[in-house]
Amino acid sequence: MNMADVEAKVFSIEVLREFCTRVFLHFGVPKNDAIEAAEVLASADLRGIDSHGVARLHSYFDMLSEGRINPEPEIKVVRSTLSTATVDGDNGLGLVVGPQANRIAMDMAEKAGSGWVSVRNTNHFGIAGYYVLQALERDLIGWAMTNSTSLVTPLWGMERMLGTNPIAIAFPGKEEPPIVIDMATCAAAFGKIEMARRKGQAIPSGWGIDSEGRGTTDPGGMLAGGALLPLGPDLHRGAHKGSSF
Amino acid sequence: MNMADVEAKVFSIEVLREFCTRVFLHFGVPKNDAIEAAEVLASADLRGIDSHGVARLHSYFDMLSEGRINPEPEIKVVRSTLSTATVDGDNGLGLVVGPQANRIAMDMAEKAGSGWVSVRNTNHFGIAGYYVLQALERDLIGWAMTNSTSLVTPLWGMERMLGTNPIAIAFPGKEEPPIVIDMATCAAAFGKIEMARRKGQAIPSGWGIDSEGRGTTDPGGMLAGGALLPLGPDLHRGAHKGSSF
Repeated sequence: MNMADVEAKVFSIEVLREFCTRVFLHFGVPKNDAIEAAEVLASADLRGIDSHGVARLHSYFDMLSEGRINPEPEIKVVRSTLSTATVDGDNGLGLVVGPQANRIAMDMAEKAGSGWVSVRNTNHFGIAGYYVLQALERDLIGWAMTNSTSLVTPLWGMERMLGTNPIAIAFPGKEEPPIVIDMATCAAAFGKIEMARRKGQAIPSGWGIDSEGRGTTDPGGMLAGGALLPLGPDLHRGAHKGSSF
Repeated sequence: MNMADVEAKVFSIEVLREFCTRVFLHFGVPKNDAIEAAEVLASADLRGIDSHGVARLHSYFDMLSEGRINPEPEIKVVRSTLSTATVDGDNGLGLVVGPQANRIAMDMAEKAGSGWVSVRNTNHFGIAGYYVLQALERDLIGWAMTNSTSLVTPLWGMERMLGTNPIAIAFPGKEEPPIVIDMATCAAAFGKIEMARRKGQAIPSGWGIDSEGRGTTDPGGMLAGGALLPLGPDLHRGAHKGSSF
């Protein structure tokens, strides 16, 4: 179905939050977790990151339907120092494990000056920006990074080898507004390609290549076995930086 | 003087180290500090980062000559938590204050799991990569960042407003070689423009603009009141990421 053919409907954020919460509850996610997971998705739409908001619900729905996500994970700290920890997500929703790991990191930061938590056994955690905004609420500097499915080709490559590896950072600004950075480290986030396909639109040149390694402006070409390109147009203008090559 | 007219001479790294050390000693830098500062410069040349090696000695020479650098700083920790500290460099050479702050950070990391040190009252600290390579020596993950003079224009700008703000990260790789990233966050480091001017060469389009805000391939145009461009060629291909706009 081409979404360009669908009549646009506008839903209030409350309706979307409630809808998402009920979907998660349906799969046996405990109530507080379901509410928090819905909040992470809503936060993306509220920041204008449509690619990572409620539009992504279907992928969590699919994974929960197929039993690929544990709706009631036992989230554990498996290793820790004063300022670092490794959390095992017990294959729970990234939208549930992520916020829990983030709270552990923030608690550590308040005690030890900084807190760094890595997470294993989980999945897509929504926008990286959500986590750093939570840090701002506690007057902390927030820093969130994640790996991802292989989607990006390194400089001169034609295969998916690297993740889109997003980074988000937020700094409190005292009397000034905070600085909030939230970005994939490739030229454009994968969600932007998905959105272009839903809308039946072309993508700018420089975002992706097709399965033959040729630059393409067709989101379908990138999605069908192609790859995303690193940030920076070519070797002499920084593509080695985008892929840290 | 155009360096393209100068006959090329090759010096061994030992000669360059000795030469740099003696220049620092001449200005009253204590012996161990002078040796370490020379080592930071040599490490850049040895990694092929000619823009940041012994070629930069002249700028430290100038600052020391003009009394703008304190050759015998009293480096102090002015604030600390278990995993963070602020170091005051007492206006010492960045090549001396940086390695000292780095040792404090690494000592903390070994005790608290991570160590993060910010430094004030100092100047250019050489390649960011030096600091993370030191971390590898101690089987630590290294992360080094610095601000810089305003040299980069944000997306759509024509004025120098942002630093080149380099980032270096290194990860030990167990039986694999370590991963080492060391880069300015703009399309090309300022030192690359300086090198092109010394060699009388053009720079690739996309590196800089002149004082009128027009793209230029003349390094002199960028240096004479122009600005460096952020990583990413334009809005739709990530220049907002390069300037975190």
